[in-house]
Amino acid sequence: MTERIGKYTLHLKNKPSIISSAAVVGKKEGEGPLCADFDAIHNDSKLGANSWEEAESLFQKEALDRAMGKIGLECADIGYVFAGDLLDQCIGSSFGLKDKNIPLIGLYGACSTMALSMSMASIFANGNLAKYVAAVTSSHYCSSERQFRFPLEYGGQRPPSAQWTVTGAGAVILSQHQNNLPSVEHITIGKIVDLGVTDQNNMGGAMAPAAADTIKNYLSDTCTTPDDYDMIFTGDLGSVGSSLLYDLLKLDNIDLRSHHKDCGLMIFSQDQTDVLAGGSGCGCSASVFSSHILRQMKEGRLKNILFVATGALLSPTSVLQRETVPAIAHLLHITV
Amino acid sequence: MTERIGKYTLHLKNKPSIISSAAVVGKKEGEGPLCADFDAIHNDSKLGANSWEEAESLFQKEALDRAMGKIGLECADIGYVFAGDLLDQCIGSSFGLKDKNIPLIGLYGACSTMALSMSMASIFANGNLAKYVAAVTSSHYCSSERQFRFPLEYGGQRPPSAQWTVTGAGAVILSQHQNNLPSVEHITIGKIVDLGVTDQNNMGGAMAPAAADTIKNYLSDTCTTPDDYDMIFTGDLGSVGSSLLYDLLKLDNIDLRSHHKDCGLMIFSQDQTDVLAGGSGCGCSASVFSSHILRQMKEGRLKNILFVATGALLSPTSVLQRETVPAIAHLLHITV
Repeated sequence: MTERIGKYTLHLKNKPSIISSAAVVGKKEGEGPLCADFDAIHNDSKLGANSWEEAESLFQKEALDRAMGKIGLECADIGYVFAGDLLDQCIGSSFGLKDKNIPLIGLYGACSTMALSMSMASIFANGNLAKYVAAVTSSHYCSSERQFRFPLEYGGQRPPSAQWTVTGAGAVILSQHQNNLPSVEHITIGKIVDLGVTDQNNMGGAMAPAAADTIKNYLSDTCTTPDDYDMIFTGDLGSVGSSLLYDLLKLDNIDLRSHHKDCGLMIFSQDQTDVLAGGSGCGCSASVFSSHILRQMKEGRLKNILFVATGALLSPTSVLQRETVPAIAHLLHITV
Repeated sequence: MTERIGKYTLHLKNKPSIISSAAVVGKKEGEGPLCADFDAIHNDSKLGANSWEEAESLFQKEALDRAMGKIGLECADIGYVFAGDLLDQCIGSSFGLKDKNIPLIGLYGACSTMALSMSMASIFANGNLAKYVAAVTSSHYCSSERQFRFPLEYGGQRPPSAQWTVTGAGAVILSQHQNNLPSVEHITIGKIVDLGVTDQNNMGGAMAPAAADTIKNYLSDTCTTPDDYDMIFTGDLGSVGSSLLYDLLKLDNIDLRSHHKDCGLMIFSQDQTDVLAGGSGCGCSASVFSSHILRQMKEGRLKNILFVATGALLSPTSVLQRETVPAIAHLLHITV
């Protein structure tokens, strides 16, 4: 049912389908160009919670609830949920999902988590380990900024390479193959790539080499080129990382430019200049994929895509200890 | 190849085998009753590193290297590694494995991580998604204590219910079934259970309800009783949590007492009184399982066991925000 192709790629022969999805975002994301695609936009990004962390967990909970609700599922119907987030000890997921009573597989892949959770959920659905398998992840500007950088009240200045952590969550539900629904055909799990970037304000630069590595491995394993896909979406490389990705792949004679979009550049408009190099965070690719990209696929405008979410595996401690920023990228090939 | 039994349990029909394992621990663990079983005992638990975090990553790296080395495998032979740890953003795993060039699936399950990583690795091996799949995890007293509680230099007093984070790492390698080797037959992925414990110095109390829930679900799904197993090992409930587990299961007429051992109570001797209620940390069940338990199985003294590692899904932030301590437990049924 699952067959290895080449060195790194798995072919999911049963082509599990994404039968439902939902994306819930904050005010700033709701002012961006994808506003019409999101399921809910919360102008109060604290959602009336006592803390930003609690708010993030509520985003994650709501995304899953909405994805289940759309197809009339309840928690008891979901066999497994794969979830993770950026917060210390992944409390966005633990607290967001703690009352769901669904077997939980906690994941950590930083901003690559949506691709990681969907990959694992696809493998479970492909093997029919459960009828319905969910994948969900989130990030929140306020919980993330104070954890990784400075308290919001400090008003720290950010360099042009910095990205803006998206406030939002995305959830998908996978099940057995259904025609006319986006279905996962291939998966490439990434390896850590560390080219020695130490600037925590240049996540795009740290993650681009990992994206390049995973894309190269996938294209090589499947003997395909970027021209074979309607679009290749990266997670949140932003402007700096995207440009670096083009340069890195050019060294291997792979031209991505005309077949590439980055979720971090899609979610905000060019007028939203304070996001600097673009959006980031687990919630960035999660919310863009679970809304805009899947809608384009369901409406037939995209039929054959790669989704490559990237993660920077740093922690506030590793940054203070002057360690590098290892990165990873996981890829899914999704078709209708 | 993988079949669902009852509501929560997966039957791995190909019975993937644990073909190699290794456990590396610190000085204190090396002074305990399992000293002869460990592959390496490091009297300098900093391993000459610049930080405790770097030391923890070296423990994890060494455990995997030794597990591979015993059967002559190299990194290129390993299809996937499932890894996680207790540190913020799982840097024990990211930095420990960053140069390995092995596709990495990062997990977060707190102290349940060894059972979670082995469960996922077993599913991959059972489905033949790769010839060799590794699972590895670690914890370190010094990196953990300062992250979750106080700086070591502060000399904080700990109540009798507190546990001692084990310095150590365990790694296993799974592959297709081989006779006479410990093999994974069933897996039960846990749900979050939160009975409202808020005392971060009583992890056993917080985790026991999760262990009880997963054990009950497994026994019910498989129509078995504790008498059907040579031994049921829990991860790190310690003395407080173990006693609570007995009480909780008694409510369902399940008597665990004569068939139960807890890794947190096995790794230290009664003379090591400063460990208080026992050992804890991802590295506790990981190092006890990867050494002592697997050795007992290979030598035929144990033929049919359950391994149930438990995790407390708190973070320093959630504790300061006066949140409860959600917990989770994952279970593997392993036979020779």
